[in-house]
Amino acid sequence: MEELVGLREGSPGNPVTLRELWSPCPRIRKGIRDGLGWLKQKLFREGEDWHLLMTLGVLMALISYTMNFAVNRVVRAHKWLYREIGDSHLLRYLSWTVYPVALVSFSSGFSQSITPFSGGSGIPELKTILSGVILDDYLDIKNFGAKVVGLSCTLASGSTVFLGKVGPFVHLSVMIAAYLSRVRLKATKESENRRKQKEMLVVAAAVGVATVFAAPFSGVLFSIEVLSSHYSVWDYWRCFFAATCGAFMFRLLAVFNSEQETITSLFKTGFRVDVPFDLPEIFFFVVLGAICGILSCAYLFCQRTFLGFIRTNRFTSKLMATSKPVYSTLATLILASITYPPGVGRFMASRLSMKEHLDSLFDNNSWALITRNSSPPWPAEPDPQNLWFEWYHPQFTVFGTLAFFLVMKFWMLILATTIPIPAGYFMPIFIFGAATGRLIGEALSVAFPEGIIAGGITYPIIPGGYALAGAAAFSGAVTHTISTAILAFELTGQIVHALPVLLAVLAANAIAQSCQPSFYEGTIIVKKLPFLPWIRGRNIGNHPVIVEHFMNGAITVLAKDMSMEEVVKVVTSTDVAEYPLVESTESQILMGVVRRAQLLQALQAEPPSWVPEHQRCLQDILARSCPMEPVTLHLSPETSLHQAHNLFELMNLHSLFVTLRGKAVGFVSWVELKKAISNLTNPPAPK
Amino acid sequence: MEELVGLREGSPGNPVTLRELWSPCPRIRKGIRDGLGWLKQKLFREGEDWHLLMTLGVLMALISYTMNFAVNRVVRAHKWLYREIGDSHLLRYLSWTVYPVALVSFSSGFSQSITPFSGGSGIPELKTILSGVILDDYLDIKNFGAKVVGLSCTLASGSTVFLGKVGPFVHLSVMIAAYLSRVRLKATKESENRRKQKEMLVVAAAVGVATVFAAPFSGVLFSIEVLSSHYSVWDYWRCFFAATCGAFMFRLLAVFNSEQETITSLFKTGFRVDVPFDLPEIFFFVVLGAICGILSCAYLFCQRTFLGFIRTNRFTSKLMATSKPVYSTLATLILASITYPPGVGRFMASRLSMKEHLDSLFDNNSWALITRNSSPPWPAEPDPQNLWFEWYHPQFTVFGTLAFFLVMKFWMLILATTIPIPAGYFMPIFIFGAATGRLIGEALSVAFPEGIIAGGITYPIIPGGYALAGAAAFSGAVTHTISTAILAFELTGQIVHALPVLLAVLAANAIAQSCQPSFYEGTIIVKKLPFLPWIRGRNIGNHPVIVEHFMNGAITVLAKDMSMEEVVKVVTSTDVAEYPLVESTESQILMGVVRRAQLLQALQAEPPSWVPEHQRCLQDILARSCPMEPVTLHLSPETSLHQAHNLFELMNLHSLFVTLRGKAVGFVSWVELKKAISNLTNPPAPK
Repeated sequence: MEELVGLREGSPGNPVTLRELWSPCPRIRKGIRDGLGWLKQKLFREGEDWHLLMTLGVLMALISYTMNFAVNRVVRAHKWLYREIGDSHLLRYLSWTVYPVALVSFSSGFSQSITPFSGGSGIPELKTILSGVILDDYLDIKNFGAKVVGLSCTLASGSTVFLGKVGPFVHLSVMIAAYLSRVRLKATKESENRRKQKEMLVVAAAVGVATVFAAPFSGVLFSIEVLSSHYSVWDYWRCFFAATCGAFMFRLLAVFNSEQETITSLFKTGFRVDVPFDLPEIFFFVVLGAICGILSCAYLFCQRTFLGFIRTNRFTSKLMATSKPVYSTLATLILASITYPPGVGRFMASRLSMKEHLDSLFDNNSWALITRNSSPPWPAEPDPQNLWFEWYHPQFTVFGTLAFFLVMKFWMLILATTIPIPAGYFMPIFIFGAATGRLIGEALSVAFPEGIIAGGITYPIIPGGYALAGAAAFSGAVTHTISTAILAFELTGQIVHALPVLLAVLAANAIAQSCQPSFYEGTIIVKKLPFLPWIRGRNIGNHPVIVEHFMNGAITVLAKDMSMEEVVKVVTSTDVAEYPLVESTESQILMGVVRRAQLLQALQAEPPSWVPEHQRCLQDILARSCPMEPVTLHLSPETSLHQAHNLFELMNLHSLFVTLRGKAVGFVSWVELKKAISNLTNPPAPK
Repeated sequence: MEELVGLREGSPGNPVTLRELWSPCPRIRKGIRDGLGWLKQKLFREGEDWHLLMTLGVLMALISYTMNFAVNRVVRAHKWLYREIGDSHLLRYLSWTVYPVALVSFSSGFSQSITPFSGGSGIPELKTILSGVILDDYLDIKNFGAKVVGLSCTLASGSTVFLGKVGPFVHLSVMIAAYLSRVRLKATKESENRRKQKEMLVVAAAVGVATVFAAPFSGVLFSIEVLSSHYSVWDYWRCFFAATCGAFMFRLLAVFNSEQETITSLFKTGFRVDVPFDLPEIFFFVVLGAICGILSCAYLFCQRTFLGFIRTNRFTSKLMATSKPVYSTLATLILASITYPPGVGRFMASRLSMKEHLDSLFDNNSWALITRNSSPPWPAEPDPQNLWFEWYHPQFTVFGTLAFFLVMKFWMLILATTIPIPAGYFMPIFIFGAATGRLIGEALSVAFPEGIIAGGITYPIIPGGYALAGAAAFSGAVTHTISTAILAFELTGQIVHALPVLLAVLAANAIAQSCQPSFYEGTIIVKKLPFLPWIRGRNIGNHPVIVEHFMNGAITVLAKDMSMEEVVKVVTSTDVAEYPLVESTESQILMGVVRRAQLLQALQAEPPSWVPEHQRCLQDILARSCPMEPVTLHLSPETSLHQAHNLFELMNLHSLFVTLRGKAVGFVSWVELKKAISNLTNPPAPK
């Protein structure tokens, strides 16, 4: 009976096939199939790619987790070796230094031999790509292996080299995203769409950050702040979706692997919730922010100068050009020798891993107050329950070690950033800031040992709160971002210090942004990558600069009525990528654009015909074999600099023609814009 | 001696005046003056307006705090009256209802009599203004008083009317910002700059939200998500600065007034930190998000339909047009009668204020588990320590009251949104979501009374966490935002539920965004405000639509060689705001734009001359008295719809001319774009 009903129901629209009729419950099966079809149609609608975003998030989380897992094993093996090797100082020294030196030199050699793009963080290059520049092969999936292996080795060398993984993870994520969208294009046979690709890259950057820190909010905000000067809300939602998938998966794996009971934050803190800080402490938080801002300026300046020095100095530039691994080995050897624990490393807590550094710096208690009367021992190995013992030295006290740590890490970090290996520079900066904050927090807890009195109860000052604010402020100042504040909350799982941390970050940013370009911008400048400068608010004067003032009027045009001779002359004498095509030499009315490559091809393919060369004109070739592309957007000489800059930035353009009443009168590219903007800031001497 | 040195030092550059010489310590005074001058120059550089942002933040915080303070006093007086009036039911009923009815009718009458713009939240109008539409007088400072007084009365009527303050605060903040920038323009004599004004408005919106909730992060993100489809990072930093100033000042005032010991969050919760939730609970969080999404669709649909009904129904539309206070009075009387505590209000915790509603819903304990064995009494007044007693009824249990609350508030809220008073609709939605979450959380705590077992210890399920997720998810779905998640963390001062809340918000948003326009967009549609629809990702087909397909080719041009007769004919037969001016009737080359108003003026002022009318042409007038404005940007027929849409949206344009080889061939405005976009979604029937 039921089958009959199924038959009857199915017959008018979709006739039920014989095979379906024989299998049981055709109605239910048809219902399920229809439901699945509907779901598929909903999920995979044309243009929708939520499944792609989810795949990206999950993939990156898997990679991040697997890498952490592998790196932890290698680090544990190093610790075991160092512990078991005996008491001979030479052997211990060798075991301490050879391990990271070998890893870093392998990382450097391996990754550089596969692709020259694998060094550094990758965020400056991504910034450049998102502004519309095409960096060939930078997003190619074949760099992936080099970057993964290289980064794993870098991370496995631990706190000796003191580098992180954020930047390379953003790069990795972007590579996967570019690959996924290419696969999707092939599968759906859609035409390539630059805008969609850019959307994917922005999302990928957010996923990269989110899967390293399990922090979706700060991942999204970081990608907003760092990557471009304008942001579409449509991207924002997609970023949140993908970043949440990534972060969730990343923490889920930790739970599945029984590292944790449930999903929690990475560096869980236990700050007091009821009275976390007293009102006057806000002042010290702001002062801490200002100090971090000043420090970040010094750091950025020194880092840029040193990077420039390495690139221009005869000896080092030769070394970098010919044998990068040698340079890496030398630099790592210096870093490893200094951090050797029984030596100088004793005074800078070098036995702690980077995670332990942060864990210990965010500690609740005031070390200075605890160690005033009792002196904790220096354990044979770091005590997981009392990691902060590493920061204490009987003679130097915690202040000495913290200050020494800051002084030494300042230049060691700058040295480390010059090593050509895949590495992130965010985490070390974050830890450096945390140590700065801790130092000030400890000083305050000693200066005001009676603490905060609220409601009759005395609460001690929490130096960990200052470490949190310092970390956010310093890393925010170096990268020119504010989202580091929210990163600090997401990492620690507490948001009680919301306002003081935000104030510190703002103070630090105010100083850093007015004095130095950000870390990423600095790298772009040193690496001579193309970029379009900002027009800051204060640069908009009362007398608007218009396109006419700065456009380049010397354009080479091709006219439709040009003879072949003339065309050949133009093509051979210039080498721009595309020529504006005008109606006639006389009228100069802009018709479209001809690509040089296509024109050359057409000229070469042109059959020798009976018409003499000087009588044939460009129009014939165009009609036959060389397509003309339309110009969809052009400037007018009266367009203001500001409007032109906006157009370039918002539409990711690189050059535009200027037309006056239809006539091509010039063009504007990044070069002209840059010059015009720099003239705004430093007006040229009046004639 | 010291004065002599001062004299000698001062003499070469700045000669020290006699008066300065006589006063003590000229050197120090000069140093201080120079320092102050330097600081002033740094702070008040041309184009800088950080001081303005700070002023805005501090002002809004002061207004917000003062309003809260005044409203609290009025609410307390109402409570006192209700308590002291005796046991007569009639008197109690009257004291319960007359108070809000009087306040709301006064609010409605007062604010509407001053300005018709004062009703509602103001965010939809702000969205429209930011997209480039000029709404006259909407940002005029004279509306300020009406809105402040009206809003205070609305808030003072308490949880009876159940409305919040976010929307109007955004409007107030925007009004102050517009006023401040006008004052600044006058003071610095800079020329008006539309872009700068827009920047100020975006910042003001963030400040508005931040000073209501003391939540700078969510204020900024809210303004990103709600106000426009593109966002500049430059605005983002300014928003953070102003919002932090505002939020800090707002909480500072609370500390100064001894309401708090130190700066903390508004609705401090005390969720368990170590194991806040178990992994399987994530599933229920997502289900909760989905339920909130479905509920929000129902709410948005009903709200829009009812608002449309009120506007079109013969009786109500007449009432609204002639006597708004009467409508307000009637609606409030219904709401107040239902919430009368000894009546139906008993079952919906109507004695609690809105703040107390949230405080109680975020409670740690499971009410259902507590009340299984013992039955708490219904106190004569809400007990500040155990606010949740209000949610318990011996027969109905907490499930009954929560469900009843949801059902009743659903339509009461829709009714309340139609009352023409200044009021915010975010807070009630947030509470509604919290109640939804609480209901599900309580159900779960009963379904799994053994709770979570982790590390051998049993932890009960926290229904408060679900309330938090529900609040964020429902309010996020209604407003189509994700930042409500971070608002929930900022409000409660805890971020332990980061991932589950985010997942719930994403689930809710996925459903709501695919089914209904957001609350603000819905209001824009109902109020018939102009707007430009989005092109969603899926609407970009493979066959690009270009401007040629949808541009309006019927343009009325003025040619330079037109005779006066023809010009007058054109001007009298059309009434567009501006005419494209072409070189000649024959060539149609676009030269610029002539404003109709200016042209009319010039035509009228034209002296009767000896040249006969038909021999004089437009060119003469232009040369004499009517300025031509340049066209700085024009489209080409080959520009794609997507590019054109981007241009309109990013540059805040309203119409552009289309030129082909310099010739004006058509124009594109919002009307054409809207039609083209709707054709993308619902392709017209093939011809």
